[in-house]
Amino acid sequence: METNYIFGIRAIEEAIEAGKVIDKVIARRGLNGELFGQLQRTCKAKQIRIQYTTSDVIERIAEGQNHQGVVAQMSRIDFVDLGGLLGRLRAADKMPFLLLLDGITDVRNFGAIVRSAECAGVDAIIVPQKGSAPINGESVKTSAGALHHLPVCQTNNPYFAVKMLRENGIQIVGATEKGAVDFHQIDFNRPTAIIMGAEDKGISPQLLKLCDFRATIPMKGHIASLNVSVAAGVMLFEAAYQRG
Amino acid sequence: METNYIFGIRAIEEAIEAGKVIDKVIARRGLNGELFGQLQRTCKAKQIRIQYTTSDVIERIAEGQNHQGVVAQMSRIDFVDLGGLLGRLRAADKMPFLLLLDGITDVRNFGAIVRSAECAGVDAIIVPQKGSAPINGESVKTSAGALHHLPVCQTNNPYFAVKMLRENGIQIVGATEKGAVDFHQIDFNRPTAIIMGAEDKGISPQLLKLCDFRATIPMKGHIASLNVSVAAGVMLFEAAYQRG
Repeated sequence: METNYIFGIRAIEEAIEAGKVIDKVIARRGLNGELFGQLQRTCKAKQIRIQYTTSDVIERIAEGQNHQGVVAQMSRIDFVDLGGLLGRLRAADKMPFLLLLDGITDVRNFGAIVRSAECAGVDAIIVPQKGSAPINGESVKTSAGALHHLPVCQTNNPYFAVKMLRENGIQIVGATEKGAVDFHQIDFNRPTAIIMGAEDKGISPQLLKLCDFRATIPMKGHIASLNVSVAAGVMLFEAAYQRG
Repeated sequence: METNYIFGIRAIEEAIEAGKVIDKVIARRGLNGELFGQLQRTCKAKQIRIQYTTSDVIERIAEGQNHQGVVAQMSRIDFVDLGGLLGRLRAADKMPFLLLLDGITDVRNFGAIVRSAECAGVDAIIVPQKGSAPINGESVKTSAGALHHLPVCQTNNPYFAVKMLRENGIQIVGATEKGAVDFHQIDFNRPTAIIMGAEDKGISPQLLKLCDFRATIPMKGHIASLNVSVAAGVMLFEAAYQRG
Protein backbone atom coordinates (compact mmCIF):
# COMPACT_ATOMS: atom_id res chain seq x y z
CA MET A 1 0.00 0.00 0.00
CA GLU A 2 1.23 3.49 -0.86
CA THR A 3 0.35 6.91 0.35
CA ASN A 4 -1.16 9.02 -2.39
CA TYR A 5 -1.41 12.78 -2.36
CA ILE A 6 -3.50 15.32 -4.20
CA PHE A 7 -2.03 18.78 -4.75
CA GLY A 8 -3.76 22.14 -4.78
CA ILE A 9 -7.02 23.49 -3.40
CA ARG A 10 -9.24 22.92 -6.45
CA ALA A 11 -7.98 19.39 -7.02
CA ILE A 12 -8.68 18.54 -3.37
CA GLU A 13 -12.17 20.07 -3.53
CA GLU A 14 -12.87 18.00 -6.64
CA ALA A 15 -11.58 14.82 -4.99
CA ILE A 16 -13.82 15.36 -1.96
CA GLU A 17 -16.74 16.13 -4.27
CA ALA A 18 -16.05 12.86 -6.14
CA GLY A 19 -16.26 10.92 -2.88
CA LYS A 20 -12.56 10.06 -2.65
CA VAL A 21 -11.44 8.92 0.79
CA ILE A 22 -9.16 11.54 2.33
CA ASP A 23 -7.20 10.89 5.51
CA LYS A 24 -6.24 14.49 6.14
CA VAL A 25 -5.48 17.78 4.47
CA ILE A 26 -2.05 19.30 5.09
CA ALA A 27 -1.83 23.09 4.72
CA ARG A 28 0.87 25.72 5.04
CA ARG A 29 0.60 27.62 8.32
CA GLY A 30 -0.81 31.13 7.86
CA LEU A 31 -2.50 30.32 4.58
CA ASN A 32 -5.67 32.31 3.89
CA GLY A 33 -7.76 33.55 0.99
CA GLU A 34 -11.27 32.82 -0.19
CA LEU A 35 -10.54 29.48 -1.88
CA PHE A 36 -8.79 28.10 1.18
CA GLY A 37 -11.63 29.39 3.40
CA GLN A 38 -14.04 27.40 1.25
CA LEU A 39 -11.87 24.27 1.59
CA GLN A 40 -11.78 24.74 5.37
CA ARG A 41 -15.59 24.79 5.41
CA THR A 42 -15.78 21.72 3.20
CA CYS A 43 -13.35 19.85 5.45
CA LYS A 44 -15.30 20.84 8.53
CA ALA A 45 -18.53 19.63 6.97
CA LYS A 46 -16.95 16.33 5.90
CA GLN A 47 -15.02 15.92 9.19
CA ILE A 48 -11.68 15.91 7.40
CA ARG A 49 -8.82 17.01 9.63
CA ILE A 50 -6.55 19.86 8.48
CA GLN A 51 -2.98 19.66 9.73
CA TYR A 52 -0.90 22.84 9.56
CA THR A 53 2.81 22.71 8.86
CA THR A 54 5.72 24.65 7.27
CA SER A 55 6.24 25.40 3.58
CA ASP A 56 9.27 23.10 3.67
CA VAL A 57 7.21 20.04 4.56
CA ILE A 58 4.65 20.80 1.86
CA GLU A 59 7.44 21.30 -0.71
CA ARG A 60 8.97 17.96 0.17
CA ILE A 61 5.64 16.15 -0.20
CA ALA A 62 4.78 17.93 -3.45
CA GLU A 63 8.15 17.21 -5.09
CA GLY A 64 7.82 20.13 -7.46
CA GLN A 65 4.12 19.84 -8.19
CA ASN A 66 1.95 22.94 -8.04
CA HIS A 67 0.33 22.78 -4.59
CA GLN A 68 -0.89 26.33 -3.62
CA GLY A 69 0.22 25.50 -0.05
CA VAL A 70 -2.18 22.58 0.36
CA VAL A 71 -1.92 18.84 -0.17
CA ALA A 72 -4.33 16.06 0.77
CA GLN A 73 -3.30 12.63 1.91
CA MET A 74 -5.56 10.01 0.42
CA SER A 75 -6.81 7.15 2.50
CA ARG A 76 -4.76 4.13 1.68
CA ILE A 77 -7.46 1.70 0.70
CA ASP A 78 -5.84 -1.22 -1.06
CA PHE A 79 -8.29 -2.05 -3.84
CA VAL A 80 -7.31 -5.35 -5.39
CA ASP A 81 -8.39 -7.51 -8.29
CA LEU A 82 -9.68 -10.95 -7.24
CA GLY A 83 -7.53 -12.88 -9.72
CA GLY A 84 -4.41 -10.99 -8.68
CA LEU A 85 -5.23 -11.47 -5.00
CA LEU A 86 -5.62 -15.23 -5.38
CA GLY A 87 -2.37 -15.37 -7.34
CA ARG A 88 -0.51 -13.47 -4.62
CA LEU A 89 -1.94 -15.67 -1.85
CA ARG A 90 -0.84 -18.75 -3.82
CA ALA A 91 2.63 -17.30 -4.43
CA ALA A 92 2.95 -16.55 -0.69
CA ASP A 93 1.83 -20.10 0.08
CA LYS A 94 -1.05 -18.72 2.17
CA MET A 95 -4.23 -20.65 2.82
CA PRO A 96 -6.86 -18.12 1.73
CA PHE A 97 -9.26 -16.71 4.32
CA LEU A 98 -11.72 -14.40 2.62
CA LEU A 99 -14.95 -12.65 3.53
CA LEU A 100 -17.65 -11.68 1.05
CA LEU A 101 -20.25 -9.15 2.22
CA ASP A 102 -23.41 -9.61 0.19
CA GLY A 103 -25.54 -6.49 0.52
CA ILE A 104 -24.33 -5.04 3.82
CA THR A 105 -25.47 -1.44 3.40
CA ASP A 106 -25.28 -0.09 6.96
CA VAL A 107 -21.98 1.76 7.32
CA ARG A 108 -21.64 0.98 11.04
CA ASN A 109 -22.20 -2.73 10.49
CA PHE A 110 -19.86 -2.68 7.49
CA GLY A 111 -17.13 -0.91 9.47
CA ALA A 112 -17.47 -3.21 12.48
CA ILE A 113 -17.27 -6.28 10.22
CA VAL A 114 -14.14 -5.01 8.46
CA ARG A 115 -12.60 -4.31 11.88
CA SER A 116 -13.41 -7.86 13.05
CA ALA A 117 -12.12 -9.34 9.80
CA GLU A 118 -8.80 -7.56 10.14
CA CYS A 119 -8.49 -8.76 13.75
CA ALA A 120 -9.35 -12.34 12.76
CA GLY A 121 -6.63 -12.48 10.10
CA VAL A 122 -8.84 -12.31 7.00
CA ASP A 123 -6.76 -11.79 3.84
CA ALA A 124 -9.23 -9.58 1.97
CA ILE A 125 -12.87 -8.65 1.86
CA ILE A 126 -14.92 -8.93 -1.29
CA VAL A 127 -17.79 -6.47 -1.77
CA PRO A 128 -20.21 -6.09 -4.65
CA GLN A 129 -19.84 -2.69 -6.33
CA LYS A 130 -23.59 -2.15 -6.14
CA GLY A 131 -25.72 -2.38 -3.00
CA SER A 132 -22.88 -2.18 -0.50
CA ALA A 133 -22.05 0.38 2.16
CA PRO A 134 -19.87 3.12 0.65
CA ILE A 135 -16.13 2.91 1.24
CA ASN A 136 -15.38 6.42 2.47
CA GLY A 137 -14.14 8.35 5.46
CA GLU A 138 -17.14 7.21 7.49
CA SER A 139 -16.53 3.52 6.86
CA VAL A 140 -12.79 3.95 7.51
CA LYS A 141 -13.72 5.54 10.84
CA THR A 142 -16.23 2.87 11.86
CA SER A 143 -13.70 0.20 10.89
CA ALA A 144 -11.30 1.79 13.41
CA GLY A 145 -8.83 2.15 10.54
CA ALA A 146 -8.98 -1.52 9.54
CA LEU A 147 -9.83 -0.46 5.98
CA HIS A 148 -6.27 0.86 5.76
CA HIS A 149 -4.90 -2.60 6.41
CA LEU A 150 -7.30 -5.00 4.78
CA PRO A 151 -7.32 -5.28 0.96
CA VAL A 152 -10.74 -4.69 -0.61
CA CYS A 153 -11.87 -6.43 -3.74
CA GLN A 154 -14.83 -4.74 -5.40
CA THR A 155 -16.70 -6.94 -7.82
CA ASN A 156 -19.42 -6.04 -10.27
CA ASN A 157 -20.47 -9.68 -10.44
CA PRO A 158 -20.48 -11.48 -7.08
CA TYR A 159 -21.74 -14.67 -8.74
CA PHE A 160 -18.68 -14.94 -10.99
CA ALA A 161 -16.43 -13.94 -8.09
CA VAL A 162 -17.72 -16.86 -6.00
CA LYS A 163 -17.45 -19.20 -9.00
CA MET A 164 -13.81 -18.12 -9.34
CA LEU A 165 -13.20 -18.81 -5.64
CA ARG A 166 -14.64 -22.30 -6.03
CA GLU A 167 -12.53 -22.96 -9.13
CA ASN A 168 -9.52 -22.04 -7.02
CA GLY A 169 -10.31 -24.74 -4.48
CA ILE A 170 -11.76 -22.38 -1.88
CA GLN A 171 -14.71 -23.70 0.13
CA ILE A 172 -17.67 -21.35 0.37
CA VAL A 173 -19.35 -21.06 3.76
CA GLY A 174 -22.59 -19.10 3.78
CA ALA A 175 -23.76 -17.78 7.14
CA THR A 176 -27.51 -18.15 7.27
CA GLU A 177 -30.17 -18.48 9.93
CA LYS A 178 -31.75 -21.29 7.94
CA GLY A 179 -28.55 -23.32 7.67
CA ALA A 180 -28.30 -26.99 8.48
CA VAL A 181 -24.80 -27.06 9.94
CA ASP A 182 -23.66 -25.71 13.31
CA PHE A 183 -20.74 -23.44 12.37
CA HIS A 184 -18.55 -25.24 14.91
CA GLN A 185 -18.78 -28.33 12.67
CA ILE A 186 -17.20 -26.55 9.69
CA ASP A 187 -13.52 -27.26 9.06
CA PHE A 188 -12.23 -23.71 8.63
CA ASN A 189 -8.62 -24.92 8.49
CA ARG A 190 -8.91 -25.05 4.71
CA PRO A 191 -8.99 -22.37 2.01
CA THR A 192 -12.23 -20.63 2.98
CA ALA A 193 -14.47 -17.78 1.96
CA ILE A 194 -17.27 -16.86 4.35
CA ILE A 195 -20.32 -15.06 2.96
CA MET A 196 -22.39 -12.81 5.21
CA GLY A 197 -25.72 -11.58 3.83
CA ALA A 198 -27.84 -8.50 4.34
CA GLU A 199 -29.55 -8.06 7.72
CA ASP A 200 -33.03 -8.22 6.19
CA LYS A 201 -32.76 -10.56 3.23
CA GLY A 202 -29.73 -12.67 4.06
CA ILE A 203 -27.51 -14.07 1.32
CA SER A 204 -28.99 -13.71 -2.18
CA PRO A 205 -30.39 -17.00 -3.57
CA GLN A 206 -27.90 -17.19 -6.45
CA LEU A 207 -24.93 -16.98 -4.06
CA LEU A 208 -26.54 -19.33 -1.55
CA LYS A 209 -26.66 -22.00 -4.29
CA LEU A 210 -22.88 -21.79 -4.64
CA CYS A 211 -22.22 -22.38 -0.93
CA ASP A 212 -20.55 -25.64 0.07
CA PHE A 213 -21.94 -25.21 3.58
CA ARG A 214 -24.84 -23.24 5.02
CA ALA A 215 -23.61 -22.52 8.51
CA THR A 216 -25.81 -21.45 11.39
CA ILE A 217 -25.07 -20.09 14.84
CA PRO A 218 -27.27 -22.11 17.21
CA MET A 219 -29.50 -19.83 19.24
CA LYS A 220 -31.51 -19.93 22.42
CA GLY A 221 -34.14 -17.45 23.56
CA HIS A 222 -36.94 -15.69 21.69
CA ILE A 223 -35.21 -13.31 19.31
CA ALA A 224 -33.10 -15.91 17.50
CA SER A 225 -31.43 -13.38 15.26
CA LEU A 226 -28.13 -11.61 15.78
CA ASN A 227 -26.89 -8.28 14.54
CA VAL A 228 -24.96 -9.11 11.33
CA SER A 229 -21.70 -7.66 12.63
CA VAL A 230 -21.97 -9.80 15.76
CA ALA A 231 -22.77 -12.91 13.69
CA ALA A 232 -19.78 -12.16 11.44
CA GLY A 233 -17.51 -11.77 14.47
CA VAL A 234 -18.65 -15.03 16.04
CA MET A 235 -18.06 -16.92 12.79
CA LEU A 236 -14.73 -15.23 11.95
CA PHE A 237 -13.22 -15.89 15.36
CA GLU A 238 -14.19 -19.55 15.31
CA ALA A 239 -12.40 -19.76 11.95
CA ALA A 240 -9.40 -17.87 13.34
CA TYR A 241 -9.27 -20.20 16.35
CA GLN A 242 -9.31 -23.30 14.18
CA ARG A 243 -6.61 -21.87 11.92
CA GLY A 244 -4.46 -21.25 15.01
CA MET B 1 -43.42 -10.17 33.14
CA GLU B 2 -46.68 -8.22 33.06
CA THR B 3 -48.10 -5.63 30.77
CA ASN B 4 -48.58 -2.30 32.50
CA TYR B 5 -50.75 0.53 31.28
CA ILE B 6 -50.94 4.23 31.96
CA PHE B 7 -54.30 5.94 31.59
CA GLY B 8 -55.08 9.43 30.36
CA ILE B 9 -53.29 11.98 28.23
CA ARG B 10 -51.53 13.93 30.97
CA ALA B 11 -50.32 10.82 32.77
CA ILE B 12 -48.90 9.49 29.50
CA GLU B 13 -47.19 12.81 28.73
CA GLU B 14 -45.65 12.76 32.20
CA ALA B 15 -44.47 9.18 31.81
CA ILE B 16 -42.79 10.00 28.49
CA GLU B 17 -41.25 13.10 30.05
CA ALA B 18 -39.93 10.95 32.91
CA GLY B 19 -38.22 8.64 30.41
CA LYS B 20 -40.51 5.65 30.93
CA VAL B 21 -40.31 3.04 28.20
CA ILE B 22 -43.55 2.99 26.23
CA ASP B 23 -44.33 0.29 23.68
CA LYS B 24 -47.29 2.04 22.12
CA VAL B 25 -50.12 4.45 22.78
CA ILE B 26 -53.65 3.19 22.18
CA ALA B 27 -56.23 5.86 21.39
CA ARG B 28 -59.94 5.96 20.63
CA ARG B 29 -60.61 6.43 16.91
CA GLY B 30 -61.79 9.96 16.09
CA LEU B 31 -60.28 11.49 19.21
CA ASN B 32 -59.16 15.08 18.82
CA GLY B 33 -58.62 18.21 20.86
CA GLU B 34 -55.60 20.27 21.77
CA LEU B 35 -54.21 17.97 24.48
CA PHE B 36 -54.38 14.91 22.25
CA GLY B 37 -52.79 16.89 19.39
CA GLN B 38 -49.90 17.67 21.72
CA LEU B 39 -49.57 13.98 22.65
CA GLN B 40 -49.55 13.04 18.96
CA ARG B 41 -46.66 15.46 18.40
CA THR B 42 -44.78 14.10 21.42
CA CYS B 43 -45.24 10.53 20.19
CA LYS B 44 -44.06 11.45 16.71
CA ALA B 45 -40.96 13.12 18.13
CA LYS B 46 -40.21 10.14 20.35
CA GLN B 47 -41.12 7.59 17.66
CA ILE B 48 -43.87 6.05 19.77
CA ARG B 49 -46.54 4.34 17.70
CA ILE B 50 -50.20 5.31 18.21
CA GLN B 51 -52.69 2.55 17.57
CA TYR B 52 -56.32 3.56 17.02
CA THR B 53 -59.15 1.38 18.21
CA THR B 54 -62.76 1.43 19.48
CA SER B 55 -64.01 2.81 22.81
CA ASP B 56 -64.86 -0.73 23.83
CA VAL B 57 -61.27 -1.90 23.68
CA ILE B 58 -60.06 1.10 25.64
CA GLU B 59 -62.78 0.55 28.27
CA ARG B 60 -61.76 -3.07 28.66
CA ILE B 61 -58.10 -2.15 29.16
CA ALA B 62 -58.87 0.69 31.56
CA GLU B 63 -61.18 -1.40 33.77
CA GLY B 64 -62.99 1.66 35.04
CA GLN B 65 -60.01 3.99 35.36
CA ASN B 66 -60.32 7.49 33.95
CA HIS B 67 -58.62 7.28 30.54
CA GLN B 68 -59.82 10.26 28.37
CA GLY B 69 -59.83 7.82 25.42
CA VAL B 70 -56.08 7.12 25.60
CA VAL B 71 -53.96 4.45 27.28
CA ALA B 72 -50.27 3.70 26.93
CA GLN B 73 -48.80 0.24 27.05
CA MET B 74 -45.53 0.25 28.96
CA SER B 75 -42.55 -1.67 27.70
CA ARG B 76 -42.29 -4.87 29.65
CA ILE B 77 -38.79 -4.57 30.99
CA ASP B 78 -38.34 -7.14 33.74
CA PHE B 79 -36.28 -5.30 36.33
CA VAL B 80 -35.08 -7.74 38.94
CA ASP B 81 -33.20 -7.64 42.21
CA LEU B 82 -29.90 -9.55 42.13
CA GLY B 83 -30.56 -11.48 45.32
CA GLY B 84 -34.01 -12.49 44.11
CA LEU B 85 -32.65 -13.46 40.72
CA LEU B 86 -29.98 -15.71 42.22
CA GLY B 87 -32.59 -17.28 44.48
CA ARG B 88 -34.90 -18.01 41.54
CA LEU B 89 -32.08 -19.50 39.47
CA ARG B 90 -31.16 -21.74 42.39
CA ALA B 91 -34.78 -22.76 42.93
CA ALA B 92 -35.08 -23.60 39.21
CA ASP B 93 -31.85 -25.62 39.46
CA LYS B 94 -30.30 -23.45 36.71
CA MET B 95 -26.58 -22.96 36.32
CA PRO B 96 -26.36 -19.15 36.25
CA PHE B 97 -25.15 -17.44 33.08
CA LEU B 98 -24.99 -13.70 33.66
CA LEU B 99 -23.56 -10.69 31.88
CA LEU B 100 -22.44 -7.50 33.59
CA LEU B 101 -21.98 -4.42 31.40
CA ASP B 102 -19.52 -2.08 33.07
CA GLY B 103 -19.87 1.37 31.52
CA ILE B 104 -21.35 0.57 28.11
CA THR B 105 -22.85 3.96 27.23
CA ASP B 106 -23.44 3.66 23.49
CA VAL B 107 -27.09 2.71 22.97
CA ARG B 108 -26.40 0.79 19.74
CA ASN B 109 -23.66 -1.27 21.37
CA PHE B 110 -25.81 -1.81 24.44
CA GLY B 111 -28.79 -2.95 22.35
CA ALA B 112 -26.68 -5.28 20.20
CA ILE B 113 -25.13 -6.84 23.31
CA VAL B 114 -28.52 -7.41 24.95
CA ARG B 115 -29.72 -8.98 21.68
CA SER B 116 -26.70 -11.31 21.59
CA ALA B 117 -27.09 -12.17 25.28
CA GLU B 118 -30.72 -13.15 24.79
CA CYS B 119 -29.75 -15.32 21.80
CA ALA B 120 -26.92 -16.95 23.75
CA GLY B 121 -29.19 -17.97 26.62
CA VAL B 122 -27.99 -15.47 29.23
CA ASP B 123 -30.28 -15.46 32.30
CA ALA B 124 -30.05 -11.74 33.08
CA ILE B 125 -27.91 -8.71 32.47
CA ILE B 126 -26.54 -6.60 35.27
CA VAL B 127 -26.01 -2.90 34.62
CA PRO B 128 -24.77 -0.16 36.92
CA GLN B 129 -27.43 2.49 37.49
CA LYS B 130 -24.92 5.23 36.69
CA GLY B 131 -22.79 5.46 33.55
CA SER B 132 -24.79 3.00 31.46
CA ALA B 133 -26.73 3.41 28.24
CA PRO B 134 -30.32 4.40 29.09
CA ILE B 135 -32.94 1.66 29.04
CA ASN B 136 -35.62 3.25 26.89
CA GLY B 137 -37.46 2.86 23.61
CA GLU B 138 -34.23 3.35 21.68
CA SER B 139 -32.38 0.58 23.51
CA VAL B 140 -35.41 -1.73 23.23
CA LYS B 141 -35.35 -1.07 19.47
CA THR B 142 -31.62 -1.64 19.02
CA SER B 143 -31.93 -4.82 21.09
CA ALA B 144 -34.47 -6.05 18.50
CA GLY B 145 -36.89 -6.47 21.39
CA ALA B 146 -34.53 -8.63 23.46
CA LEU B 147 -34.99 -6.24 26.39
CA HIS B 148 -38.58 -7.54 26.61
CA HIS B 149 -37.30 -11.04 27.23
CA LEU B 150 -34.12 -10.66 29.24
CA PRO B 151 -34.37 -9.64 32.91
CA VAL B 152 -32.36 -6.55 33.80
CA CYS B 153 -30.74 -6.07 37.17
CA GLN B 154 -29.77 -2.46 37.85
CA THR B 155 -27.24 -2.03 40.61
CA ASN B 156 -26.04 1.13 42.30
CA ASN B 157 -22.92 -0.69 43.46
CA PRO B 158 -21.37 -3.00 40.85
CA TYR B 159 -18.56 -3.89 43.26
CA PHE B 160 -20.95 -5.35 45.82
CA ALA B 161 -22.95 -7.01 43.05
CA VAL B 162 -19.85 -8.87 41.85
CA LYS B 163 -18.91 -9.75 45.42
CA MET B 164 -22.39 -11.21 45.86
CA LEU B 165 -21.99 -13.25 42.66
CA ARG B 166 -18.69 -14.64 43.95
CA GLU B 167 -20.21 -15.49 47.31
CA ASN B 168 -22.85 -17.45 45.41
CA GLY B 169 -20.21 -19.61 43.75
CA ILE B 170 -20.33 -17.85 40.40
CA GLN B 171 -17.04 -17.50 38.55
CA ILE B 172 -16.28 -14.02 37.24
CA VAL B 173 -14.79 -13.81 33.74
CA GLY B 174 -13.60 -10.36 32.73
CA ALA B 175 -13.17 -9.74 29.02
CA THR B 176 -10.07 -7.63 28.58
CA GLU B 177 -7.55 -6.98 25.85
CA LYS B 178 -4.77 -7.31 28.40
CA GLY B 179 -5.91 -10.68 29.69
CA ALA B 180 -3.66 -13.67 30.10
CA VAL B 181 -6.08 -16.43 29.15
CA ASP B 182 -7.42 -17.27 25.70
CA PHE B 183 -11.21 -17.27 26.22
CA HIS B 184 -11.41 -20.73 24.65
CA GLN B 185 -9.51 -22.04 27.69
CA ILE B 186 -12.19 -20.88 30.13
CA ASP B 187 -14.60 -23.55 31.38
CA PHE B 188 -17.91 -21.77 30.84
CA ASN B 189 -19.87 -24.87 31.77
CA ARG B 190 -20.01 -23.61 35.34
CA PRO B 191 -21.97 -20.84 37.07
CA THR B 192 -20.54 -17.84 35.21
CA ALA B 193 -20.80 -14.08 35.01
CA ILE B 194 -19.00 -12.38 32.13
CA ILE B 195 -18.03 -8.73 32.52
CA MET B 196 -17.66 -6.53 29.44
CA GLY B 197 -16.06 -3.11 29.95
CA ALA B 198 -16.40 0.25 28.27
CA GLU B 199 -15.00 0.60 24.74
CA ASP B 200 -12.45 3.19 25.81
CA LYS B 201 -11.48 2.32 29.36
CA GLY B 202 -12.33 -1.37 29.60
CA ILE B 203 -13.40 -2.90 32.90
CA SER B 204 -12.92 -0.61 35.90
CA PRO B 205 -9.92 -1.57 38.07
CA GLN B 206 -12.03 -2.40 41.14
CA LEU B 207 -14.12 -4.92 39.20
CA LEU B 208 -11.09 -6.31 37.36
CA LYS B 209 -9.60 -7.24 40.75
CA LEU B 210 -12.63 -9.41 41.49
CA CYS B 211 -12.32 -11.41 38.25
CA ASP B 212 -11.35 -15.08 38.53
CA PHE B 213 -10.18 -14.98 34.91
CA ARG B 214 -9.10 -12.20 32.61
CA ALA B 215 -10.08 -13.58 29.24
CA THR B 216 -8.77 -12.31 25.93
CA ILE B 217 -9.80 -12.91 22.34
CA PRO B 218 -6.55 -13.67 20.48
CA MET B 219 -6.08 -11.26 17.59
CA LYS B 220 -4.14 -11.05 14.38
CA GLY B 221 -3.59 -7.97 12.23
CA HIS B 222 -2.82 -4.36 13.11
CA ILE B 223 -5.96 -3.06 14.82
CA ALA B 224 -6.09 -5.68 17.59
CA SER B 225 -9.27 -4.28 19.10
CA LEU B 226 -12.84 -5.33 18.45
CA ASN B 227 -16.06 -3.41 18.72
CA VAL B 228 -17.36 -4.22 22.22
CA SER B 229 -20.62 -5.71 20.92
CA VAL B 230 -18.65 -8.02 18.62
CA ALA B 231 -16.29 -9.02 21.45
CA ALA B 232 -19.30 -9.72 23.69
CA GLY B 233 -20.91 -11.85 20.97
CA VAL B 234 -17.76 -13.89 20.40
CA MET B 235 -17.36 -14.57 24.11
CA LEU B 236 -21.08 -15.27 24.78
CA PHE B 237 -21.40 -17.77 21.95
CA GLU B 238 -18.30 -19.69 23.02
CA ALA B 239 -19.91 -19.94 26.46
CA ALA B 240 -23.25 -20.97 24.92
CA TYR B 241 -21.48 -23.62 22.82
CA GLN B 242 -19.72 -25.10 25.84
CA ARG B 243 -22.94 -25.11 27.83
CA GLY B 244 -24.63 -27.04 25.00
